[in-house]
Amino acid sequence: MRREVAYNQYLCEVEKQLKSGGLFLTSRGEKVNTMVIGWGGIVFFWGRPVFLVPVRKSRYTHGLIEKSGEFTVSVPPKEDLKAALTFCGTKSGRDFDKFKECNLTPVPGEKVNTPVIGECWLHYECKVICRHDLVPENLDPEIDRKFYPDYHTFFLGEIVACYTTE
Amino acid sequence: MRREVAYNQYLCEVEKQLKSGGLFLTSRGEKVNTMVIGWGGIVFFWGRPVFLVPVRKSRYTHGLIEKSGEFTVSVPPKEDLKAALTFCGTKSGRDFDKFKECNLTPVPGEKVNTPVIGECWLHYECKVICRHDLVPENLDPEIDRKFYPDYHTFFLGEIVACYTTE
Repeated sequence: MRREVAYNQYLCEVEKQLKSGGLFLTSRGEKVNTMVIGWGGIVFFWGRPVFLVPVRKSRYTHGLIEKSGEFTVSVPPKEDLKAALTFCGTKSGRDFDKFKECNLTPVPGEKVNTPVIGECWLHYECKVICRHDLVPENLDPEIDRKFYPDYHTFFLGEIVACYTTE
Repeated sequence: MRREVAYNQYLCEVEKQLKSGGLFLTSRGEKVNTMVIGWGGIVFFWGRPVFLVPVRKSRYTHGLIEKSGEFTVSVPPKEDLKAALTFCGTKSGRDFDKFKECNLTPVPGEKVNTPVIGECWLHYECKVICRHDLVPENLDPEIDRKFYPDYHTFFLGEIVACYTTE
């Protein structure tokens, strides 16, 4: 059963899970794909709630979001889905059907054409309203050396639906 | 008395105040200045906590942060400082000494050379590790029309200290 919740009702839970295990970032092209993010967060911009997600340009997900202009974020339960998080966080959607490999259930979104993950308990549907390509000159040199040159794009997705499925 | 707190201890309070009254964004050049932000938020990037603040290029604050590479964010008490929030949110530091005009007390930062505001209860000291200039082509056209052409720079400040002074 879906239960609509305010986008900011579970800020702390989302932040915690982001840093300890990660969140599923799902996107859709010819096939549905998901990856795991450990960075990002929920902010408020232009009078609207926004999920900020970073995706490196080399990633399969990058092209899917660029093309579709949308994504979903699904928050896994604390203890479950560890194997799926590991698999989806280390394998590419170019090589695997991750939903099939991990027995994840794609459940249709309400406001976007990208599904959410049935095994998760909290979901954000997002439409991209802004993107930033990281520019090396505008980045701290220490961070640049440590994490790049495969630069991130920051996708800013307006949260158009948020619900739990517990 | 300063009491160190985790950067994510008051996520919900910060988000709430951001949208209802705003937060003080303080910067420093030849003089100290503060403005009010109603957009932005706390995210997690590059394995570190980051305060994301938007500043339009025309603002006095913009040049100050560009030059100093740091800022502080101070969270006002729920009911107080309304007049100061209004003044600091509508007047320019080019024309006024806002601290003097509003009887705000600049209190020296711990890890940065920018002060925090003594009358506030929660403070974040931040060092800029990344900046993004908004690029119109990467922005939703409706948002572009509604809020610009005085484009924001997004300053991403690593939170290097966080404390309450209640």
